Amino acid sequence: MRTLIVGGAGFIGSHLCDALLRDGHSVACMDNLSLGTAQNISHLLLQKNFTFYQLDAAVPEDLESIFSKEKIDYVFHLAANSDIQASSEKPEVEYRNTYTTTFNILYFMKKYSIKNLFFASTSAVYGDKRDTDLSENTPGLSPISYYGAAKLGSEALISAYTYMNDMSSLIFRFPNVIGPRLTHGVIFDFIDKLNKNNTELRILGDGRQSKPYIYVSDLVDAIMQFMNIGKQGTEIYNIGVEGETCVTKIADFLCEEMRLNDVVYQYTGGEGGWKGDVPRFSYCLDKIHMAGWEAKYSSDEAVKKTIQEVVKERK
Amino acid sequence: MRTLIVGGAGFIGSHLCDALLRDGHSVACMDNLSLGTAQNISHLLLQKNFTFYQLDAAVPEDLESIFSKEKIDYVFHLAANSDIQASSEKPEVEYRNTYTTTFNILYFMKKYSIKNLFFASTSAVYGDKRDTDLSENTPGLSPISYYGAAKLGSEALISAYTYMNDMSSLIFRFPNVIGPRLTHGVIFDFIDKLNKNNTELRILGDGRQSKPYIYVSDLVDAIMQFMNIGKQGTEIYNIGVEGETCVTKIADFLCEEMRLNDVVYQYTGGEGGWKGDVPRFSYCLDKIHMAGWEAKYSSDEAVKKTIQEVVKERK
Repeated sequence: MRTLIVGGAGFIGSHLCDALLRDGHSVACMDNLSLGTAQNISHLLLQKNFTFYQLDAAVPEDLESIFSKEKIDYVFHLAANSDIQASSEKPEVEYRNTYTTTFNILYFMKKYSIKNLFFASTSAVYGDKRDTDLSENTPGLSPISYYGAAKLGSEALISAYTYMNDMSSLIFRFPNVIGPRLTHGVIFDFIDKLNKNNTELRILGDGRQSKPYIYVSDLVDAIMQFMNIGKQGTEIYNIGVEGETCVTKIADFLCEEMRLNDVVYQYTGGEGGWKGDVPRFSYCLDKIHMAGWEAKYSSDEAVKKTIQEVVKERK
Repeated sequence: MRTLIVGGAGFIGSHLCDALLRDGHSVACMDNLSLGTAQNISHLLLQKNFTFYQLDAAVPEDLESIFSKEKIDYVFHLAANSDIQASSEKPEVEYRNTYTTTFNILYFMKKYSIKNLFFASTSAVYGDKRDTDLSENTPGLSPISYYGAAKLGSEALISAYTYMNDMSSLIFRFPNVIGPRLTHGVIFDFIDKLNKNNTELRILGDGRQSKPYIYVSDLVDAIMQFMNIGKQGTEIYNIGVEGETCVTKIADFLCEEMRLNDVVYQYTGGEGGWKGDVPRFSYCLDKIHMAGWEAKYSSDEAVKKTIQEVVKERK
């Protein structure tokens, strides 16, 4: 099958390229390299089933140049501004890189009659509902970040396009995803901070922000397992792991891995890391478990494994 | 209070201009006159508290030219593509006129620290849930029209902007709104068809599509009653009437009003009027009723009253 991975040189996208090629699919990888990197896919450039396009899905002509040339069977849309903290000051980044990319992709899928879509959504669509075990049927979705808003708007577009054009669309609402090739987020930040100064660590908020972290290979395995869902319509799954890991625990795991015993933690205070950050959430995973998938790594295991790998990458 | 009504020369917007002026507010009316008309507001042009700007909210510079000059206290956002049937072939119209207008308005409200917003949303955000009495807490919103998708995306943006910037936002999810100055929809279409040929009437679908119709003055009264809700955050209300009116009944009322006895109805068949049309829905109105508002006119009364008025207008 010829697949197009939009955002394919990003952290998650590049792991998905690996997995699709491993499974015998052919991959067109599109990325504007704003957050993704050439390095993430450099090991794939010589494979005959792999084509890289340095193009921007927010630009309609860029997308059409691929759709008009390639016969695509399946589109994986992982292009977005993935740095929520950065966009909290610049909502226009979400309008362009998260919402408009989705609109353009759907527009050309309609035009070129491409029926299969995978979309990377997020727990941020729910907003701050910290006392609820979030299920796909939790009512009153009310995002508190521009990122969550643009993703929920994208889900709405997918719902309408899928209905209007008899498509088959699979939406996963990701929690925090971690693993090799990470480009930002708390683990990434802490490693860079400690590489600069290994005596103290500035921690945003009160350190008790607690979220489920999924290891990237678990996520990619789930995508591979569900991508051929076949039936028409839009299917939404929460994807995640049992348990959560709080920010202070991440710092502890990291100091242990780096063999630093005397790091002083300096908390900036407050509940969330920044405005628009949801300080705590947990998922009800019944739907995806009943469909036959479960994560291999718990949240703590995913964090430890990622720390080991990213500490090496960032040396 | 200085108010800005975006889409103020439209069907609903122009009635809102009337009501705000009547209540002593000052009104800046912005409209690109793509669906709105100069005629709708011509009676207001000489009032000293009224200013009309023929500008387009999808163009950032147009909006900023108002915000940078006027000291606005309250924004009413009623600009959108309101012709769902037309956009079912042209999703880009919704991207531009419904979603992008919302993004731009919020962007400049943030920039100019304007805290109060009213937003005209729609029952189309729910999708096709015909067996449910739709309440504000109905889960799994899944629009089946590009219009519904762009409105739900707009609601998500409002949720995030309101949280991030300590705004106070009021969202009404409108059912079908009717009354004088109507510009499209089934009543409008039927009158124009019968004015051309009063022996037969082509009816989309099977005529059993059944929806609640609210009379425009009821809707505007509700906006006036709730606009000073005051508290921070986003508040969403279904607004509507008891009862529904089916399409064939509308045709019957109309033939009675026009004194046509022998009109032959020709049904195109099928459940919905067109793809993306939700054939039936009904609202649970407990929330807005408990907050102290109720419609004066039932759905059937609103239809009859509108028919009387619009038949005169379209002569």
